[in-house]
Amino acid sequence: MSDFEENVSHLGEFELIEKIKEMIGKPGRGELWSGDDAAVVHAPEGNLLLTIDTVVEGVDFDLDYATGEEVGWKALAVNVSDVAAMGGRPVHAVASLSVPPATRTGTALGIGRGLATAADRWGVSLVGGDVSRSSEISVTVAVTGRCERPVTRDGASPGDAICVTGTLGGAAGGLAALRAGRGRDFPDLRSRQLLPEARAHEGIEIARSGAHSMIDVSDGLAADLGHLLREGLGCSVHPNRLPIDPSLVTAAPELGLDPLTTAIVGGEDFELLFCMEPDRTGALGAELTAGMTVIGEVTEGHAAIGGRSLHEWKEMSWDHLRSR
Amino acid sequence: MSDFEENVSHLGEFELIEKIKEMIGKPGRGELWSGDDAAVVHAPEGNLLLTIDTVVEGVDFDLDYATGEEVGWKALAVNVSDVAAMGGRPVHAVASLSVPPATRTGTALGIGRGLATAADRWGVSLVGGDVSRSSEISVTVAVTGRCERPVTRDGASPGDAICVTGTLGGAAGGLAALRAGRGRDFPDLRSRQLLPEARAHEGIEIARSGAHSMIDVSDGLAADLGHLLREGLGCSVHPNRLPIDPSLVTAAPELGLDPLTTAIVGGEDFELLFCMEPDRTGALGAELTAGMTVIGEVTEGHAAIGGRSLHEWKEMSWDHLRSR
Repeated sequence: MSDFEENVSHLGEFELIEKIKEMIGKPGRGELWSGDDAAVVHAPEGNLLLTIDTVVEGVDFDLDYATGEEVGWKALAVNVSDVAAMGGRPVHAVASLSVPPATRTGTALGIGRGLATAADRWGVSLVGGDVSRSSEISVTVAVTGRCERPVTRDGASPGDAICVTGTLGGAAGGLAALRAGRGRDFPDLRSRQLLPEARAHEGIEIARSGAHSMIDVSDGLAADLGHLLREGLGCSVHPNRLPIDPSLVTAAPELGLDPLTTAIVGGEDFELLFCMEPDRTGALGAELTAGMTVIGEVTEGHAAIGGRSLHEWKEMSWDHLRSR
Repeated sequence: MSDFEENVSHLGEFELIEKIKEMIGKPGRGELWSGDDAAVVHAPEGNLLLTIDTVVEGVDFDLDYATGEEVGWKALAVNVSDVAAMGGRPVHAVASLSVPPATRTGTALGIGRGLATAADRWGVSLVGGDVSRSSEISVTVAVTGRCERPVTRDGASPGDAICVTGTLGGAAGGLAALRAGRGRDFPDLRSRQLLPEARAHEGIEIARSGAHSMIDVSDGLAADLGHLLREGLGCSVHPNRLPIDPSLVTAAPELGLDPLTTAIVGGEDFELLFCMEPDRTGALGAELTAGMTVIGEVTEGHAAIGGRSLHEWKEMSWDHLRSR
């Protein structure tokens, strides 16, 4: 039987773990990865970053349009993005995979392969994990990182330039395309949604440049910008400066989307949003492979993007739990 | 509305996280816990242990008989047990909670409280987490630990004494009682199942005593003992020496259980099973609060408990994924 004919109940928990273990790398000297009660690794020196995130079938992904590989990749990427948003370098990952017994073996192994591929992409050691039974597929990944100077969400001051890497709105555009059954027609948007690129290298460069505060754009620009503005701070962001994903601009009419709203409210772009002294933005921009755009400035007034307050924009955005 | 009347969809993701954050401790100097993209903590010196485990509603717990607090406690305890089984001290935890929107707020907050209580019990800093939407409740916890000398699963030699802390079979007895709707009649067994005690202190003492190999009893004695015997090794375990949980012995007739089989095959006791030089067991036994029992020895022959091979016993045990 091929991996695609059988399901994980035929394979069994231990064999599934064995097969996934074959996909991951080899431990360093004195280290012990998967196969014991806990992994043993060398502790990073100085600050240790820790983050954890779960992706759930039917909420964060849908196997009608995502492969197992893509699910695994994204589960790891979102954690790497969190480490990048602190200005850190991701070091280790552990993963917990929950699958219904009727899950195709090929899907479960695909998730393992996606985790391993993404780990390799960002130089992360995938050192261990766990498989459980469940009624829906979910993948939880915890990542460690190291950093010299953590860049937190607090720290912005009036007059700071507000900057963002890369482009916005592509991931939400991709989700809209996939939900409309048109993922193949818009491969760039599809990739933005299913195979996000965490800005690992950029996060380190931004921290080195002395940025005052940073977050990754997971809940959408309006929501995440709000997290960078402590009480008493506002912002002035210019809609015509927003780096809207060019593929989204092209696809928007066919997908029935407003590109600007999608770029402001759509989540999961995993770009880095940060505040820094305006006169240092030019030098930094030249360093960042993903590019960066100054989209506005921190003020002492209202928090607004164009004519709408952040609050008004956020009301359009997505709270995982709130009923609508 | 009280926490028990409303559900998490009324509360929303961010407010749920805020309420859980209030339950956890305060960061050390230079540390930053929950509330940013990743937690920033001081790295333990030397070896870093990493482990992750998920508990899933309907598989690992059932809210018909477990409270949210008990679910949270167990989700953390099973990870502390993994660190203990390496001879390590647990240091940090991060948790990811997935809940359906219709989950009662009291249940979700109870899980948070259980995580925080268990963290406090074992001196673990619960430094961050994440809340997701799902169609069944699951809790994933990742724990870091430190240890001087990791005690792995390999390392047993012929002639080693096989030892186990505490007692066996109580957790499986508790599960049987709960499933029969008789948890209240057997409170000790109920506790063994729902509020397991990870042997954190004992694990460190066992490592210091020079034990050759160690594992925690999560899948059952027969299965976990198998993990300590590399190719070419066997064991001789004496059924009449097994430290069967006295509450199980009392309850067994009413619950329709065979105490010996339950002690050998039942899982989730989270006792520590280890191999060491026979002449050092006496001194160690005097040190361990949970007590310990020498149950047999490592041989070069067959692997057996009483008249049955480990394989025969294991066939009775529980593979999370295999259909039955």
